[in-house]
Amino acid sequence: MAHRRTITGFSNPLVKFLRSLRDKKYRKREKRFLAEGLRLLTDARESGVVPEMLVMATGREPHPLLDALEAAVDAAGGEVVEMDQEILAKVTGKDNPQAVAGVFAEFDTRITQVDRSAAPIWLVAQALRDPGNLGTMLRTGDAVGAGGLILIDDCADPFSVEAVRASMGAIFTQKLAMARWDEFLPWLRSGPGQLVAASLRDPTDYRVAPYQAPCFLMVGNESQGLPEAYEQSCDLRVTIPMRGRADSLNAAVAGAVLAYEALARLGD
Amino acid sequence: MAHRRTITGFSNPLVKFLRSLRDKKYRKREKRFLAEGLRLLTDARESGVVPEMLVMATGREPHPLLDALEAAVDAAGGEVVEMDQEILAKVTGKDNPQAVAGVFAEFDTRITQVDRSAAPIWLVAQALRDPGNLGTMLRTGDAVGAGGLILIDDCADPFSVEAVRASMGAIFTQKLAMARWDEFLPWLRSGPGQLVAASLRDPTDYRVAPYQAPCFLMVGNESQGLPEAYEQSCDLRVTIPMRGRADSLNAAVAGAVLAYEALARLGD
Repeated sequence: MAHRRTITGFSNPLVKFLRSLRDKKYRKREKRFLAEGLRLLTDARESGVVPEMLVMATGREPHPLLDALEAAVDAAGGEVVEMDQEILAKVTGKDNPQAVAGVFAEFDTRITQVDRSAAPIWLVAQALRDPGNLGTMLRTGDAVGAGGLILIDDCADPFSVEAVRASMGAIFTQKLAMARWDEFLPWLRSGPGQLVAASLRDPTDYRVAPYQAPCFLMVGNESQGLPEAYEQSCDLRVTIPMRGRADSLNAAVAGAVLAYEALARLGD
Repeated sequence: MAHRRTITGFSNPLVKFLRSLRDKKYRKREKRFLAEGLRLLTDARESGVVPEMLVMATGREPHPLLDALEAAVDAAGGEVVEMDQEILAKVTGKDNPQAVAGVFAEFDTRITQVDRSAAPIWLVAQALRDPGNLGTMLRTGDAVGAGGLILIDDCADPFSVEAVRASMGAIFTQKLAMARWDEFLPWLRSGPGQLVAASLRDPTDYRVAPYQAPCFLMVGNESQGLPEAYEQSCDLRVTIPMRGRADSLNAAVAGAVLAYEALARLGD
């Protein structure tokens, strides 16, 4: 087993560094993010993504999944750090001897990295503000076999602890891209691709709309929906029936209802 | 205009009472809950539900929806309280001159209050732990024209500020019931009703399953799904295809995908 750095003091700079990754400003500066929990890190490993640094408690009980993580980090030339359980609890907010955290390099999120031919369905979110919704959309994308999630304009940070957690590991399997609308639309029009807006204005029922692959399903901001000008640039505007008194669904729910309809029509 | 109580001190017992309603223990004791924000309170009013007490900032700008709320509370014999904006901010956590909060009596949530013939679709959640998911399911229920949400076993508190907010007003329009499984199942079997489980085990695709009204769509706990014994008591077990590496959807998303399928098949 490789040499292990062991942290025994709360004031160690590494503890401060790990805690700083809960803050978007520091994540941007360090180009690193934090994922926590054995299940999430195992999901990452099984998807071929290994943390640069793995942080575990000293004196933990042995666990085969922890052993597998350690071995993967060692094999990839990463660092394994052990710290007292109370210190690790300060990092993760969870006082649990199986607590574990990983530091990952942020992914390349340029829109030009997206290979649209890789999947029949892509999810697109515009000005999505809630990190839980963002992570849930990644999770849904994985479930429908989408290629990934494209974030338009100012969205929540997909590398926040909350978004990573809500993605249930899909942040490691779904392609993630971020672009301004003025950058996204020319990219989309530079190749095949049907852009579909979840609209509150258009009467085309989502159950009868003519979806075509690659199909980019776009939902808007939680409060505002999509700007009307954006909708007008879409190839198709579809509406989900609303039978109650409210006029909209949760954004991640709307994305999922459309994504499953598109899967039923375009899948296989 | 009726007499207004005005609160000018942070130490006023009413401030403490309002803040205590963020805590489940005090909500249970007082049988009251808090809803915040002009939109949410307007949704309540338009659904015919008026707070026992309305709390607004002194010196606020006039607003027609605030006026309508005041008038409704006065008409219903409720109380309108004004407080300094800084004190109201301490209650709501939002420093906003339009901040407004209402205190509501908790609803009767006995399962025996549910009239199953009132709607073709009902949502059921078992051991749902996240208040955001719970509120989102209420919101989805409203959208599909469901009758309400039935909470089985130990769920998040539907009267928490988070659940109420995520419901986007649907807590005031959807019937809400809470029951243990051993109470719910006999009630269900005492009348017509198809109990459908969102299952990870059964191969029946949710798109081809024979839904029948009144259809009770049940999803399980975020981590565990439904207990197998509960699934076996259902009339139908349906599965939502999973094309990625994950084995489940967010619980509120799974409920919504099923609910929209049931709406397409049973609606109108």
